[in-house]
Amino acid sequence: MKKQVVRTGAKGGGRDVRAVILGGGRGTRFWPLGRAAKPKQFLRITGRDPMLLETVRRIRPFIPAKRTYVVADAVQTRLARKLLPGLAAANFIVEPLARNTAPALLLATARVWLENPRAVVAVLPADHLVREPRQFLQTLRAGVEAAAREGALVIFGIPPASPATGYGYIRHDRESGRRVGGTVFYPVTAFKEKPNLAQADEYLASGDYAWNSGMFVWRADVFAEKLETYAPELRPAWSGILEALKSGNRKNLRAAFALAPALSIDYALMEKAQGVLVADADFGWSDVGAWSTLLEVWPRDRNGNAVRGEVMTLDSRGCLVWNPGRLTVLVGVRNIVVVEAGDALLVCDTAHDQRLKDVVESLKKTRKYLKYV
Amino acid sequence: MKKQVVRTGAKGGGRDVRAVILGGGRGTRFWPLGRAAKPKQFLRITGRDPMLLETVRRIRPFIPAKRTYVVADAVQTRLARKLLPGLAAANFIVEPLARNTAPALLLATARVWLENPRAVVAVLPADHLVREPRQFLQTLRAGVEAAAREGALVIFGIPPASPATGYGYIRHDRESGRRVGGTVFYPVTAFKEKPNLAQADEYLASGDYAWNSGMFVWRADVFAEKLETYAPELRPAWSGILEALKSGNRKNLRAAFALAPALSIDYALMEKAQGVLVADADFGWSDVGAWSTLLEVWPRDRNGNAVRGEVMTLDSRGCLVWNPGRLTVLVGVRNIVVVEAGDALLVCDTAHDQRLKDVVESLKKTRKYLKYV
Repeated sequence: MKKQVVRTGAKGGGRDVRAVILGGGRGTRFWPLGRAAKPKQFLRITGRDPMLLETVRRIRPFIPAKRTYVVADAVQTRLARKLLPGLAAANFIVEPLARNTAPALLLATARVWLENPRAVVAVLPADHLVREPRQFLQTLRAGVEAAAREGALVIFGIPPASPATGYGYIRHDRESGRRVGGTVFYPVTAFKEKPNLAQADEYLASGDYAWNSGMFVWRADVFAEKLETYAPELRPAWSGILEALKSGNRKNLRAAFALAPALSIDYALMEKAQGVLVADADFGWSDVGAWSTLLEVWPRDRNGNAVRGEVMTLDSRGCLVWNPGRLTVLVGVRNIVVVEAGDALLVCDTAHDQRLKDVVESLKKTRKYLKYV
Repeated sequence: MKKQVVRTGAKGGGRDVRAVILGGGRGTRFWPLGRAAKPKQFLRITGRDPMLLETVRRIRPFIPAKRTYVVADAVQTRLARKLLPGLAAANFIVEPLARNTAPALLLATARVWLENPRAVVAVLPADHLVREPRQFLQTLRAGVEAAAREGALVIFGIPPASPATGYGYIRHDRESGRRVGGTVFYPVTAFKEKPNLAQADEYLASGDYAWNSGMFVWRADVFAEKLETYAPELRPAWSGILEALKSGNRKNLRAAFALAPALSIDYALMEKAQGVLVADADFGWSDVGAWSTLLEVWPRDRNGNAVRGEVMTLDSRGCLVWNPGRLTVLVGVRNIVVVEAGDALLVCDTAHDQRLKDVVESLKKTRKYLKYV
């Protein structure tokens, strides 16, 4: 691999800023439209374009294509390259194995570190919705500044709008907030797994918690130091990956990658490290975690129905319909998700759409249904 | 038209018995599978074959093909001829206009009368389900016997299983029942339109009412006499049709047919006539009036779901699915009808499936939706 130092340009606010977009993942929550081979970042469910493309576009005013990377496994990378012809082949970082975010981010950060250890990496999931892209960019700029100046691992925390049980929560020290570029950053005091409803209520009431957005910012050298100090079990993978990247040996890269535990970066590093800051990140964020969340995203008719395709409703309320190809008629139904995807049809109560995971698991267990996974 | 006297054979129990199958109608209740051009008697929704074919098969041990007629309009006749290659072209009686059952039965009975005024006509809708075909045949034989011997208009009354509001009811004189061939016949004292629920409850509690099945038996000459006596407004049509049939003049037939009021035979004749008998007809009848009635017809799983096609259910009960072409997954839904019919998809609460009429009416009003009617 050629070692290449990218000079910081005006776009990065005088800094070398790199975007690492997490393009992988095998979402099952948008089954039957989303499949193992086509997870939600490739679906046109939030806007006219897939969320991966929207993610790249959103950062463009701040981070140019040549400093934007997409990390994903081989299958997703193929899809991503088709979707993003403006990105050079070298900017697609292929995971040797599909593991979790920790190995993927070790690999991506190592790539950046080899080019410029002081470069700032912004880690952005490809499958989130941002309703206020300008506010997002402002927060991102501030996050880059905070990460660079303070030598901190920065995580974007979303002010919780409800006691959601589907997100991780971040507790922070409200007394020690400091403002950088219009955004307030707090020292993180604890990471909390997805809570039950009672806990979530408490978190919300306390005012000390934010939703974990899964968006991070760090300097490559800071990431390396924190890893060295707080997550020694990641060292063999980190140094192995660096060696393999330097030598360009694919087999060694795969072996080094496999040394990293298949954990999320939250669990493998962020929770353990000192000097983690959470940004008060309020930009109309949604992780678009299930079909019913689209009821908050798509325009709704006066009965609260949100539809894609020709739909006629009679005495029906709060329904979401995805059926672009044919006419759908709803009669006397409430809070139903209807999704038609060529070979498969889903009819699901909106309160049960988290169970699509179970559906896909069941499909996997039956040979004749494997083609629907 | 050739005048031809058909001798009574052994099959008819020594009588000349003719079946007139009402093959017309433009049912909307099985939309989107049933369309204007393909009503429910042509759908394979009750068994492996369309109900029209099953109706012809059911009577076969008693009434041979050569004495079985299908009356329908030109469009339905085309479909019926394809479905019933065993019936001669002459046995398809084409309605010059689609009007209602009174004109159709004037025409069909006139056809029979010209061949043999003493022949017995059994009028059978093509879109009803009979779960006990042997019991049905026994009742039919008895009905033919009663109609022939008593010179009565006979109507099959179904013992009401519930206070259904979707049927007409027949009140009868319980004290004056007489048994013919194992079936009890009562003098009819009143025809009642579809009642509301309170009325239906009363009807059911009284024991004096039966559901109007729309199946009739009469001798051709008796029909002609009753018409003459009790429904003089039908005379011009009746005599005009007879003349046109004798002369074979199609234009005159159409003109005579148009003279008959576009009413049901119940309304145009049966309600007005004296000497109408209702047969206590208990043979697992259903008029299959809507999608949800198929929940009583199709086998159900332990959660009460009845399906055609590959279906996976999770926490779902009392649902009916027609989707032979693709996989359907139901999650957390109750009492829902799901019907996929190529270009259109219906999702309907089982309690609302009578509203498909309104759906089709609405579709008719929008040009771009006309193709779905």
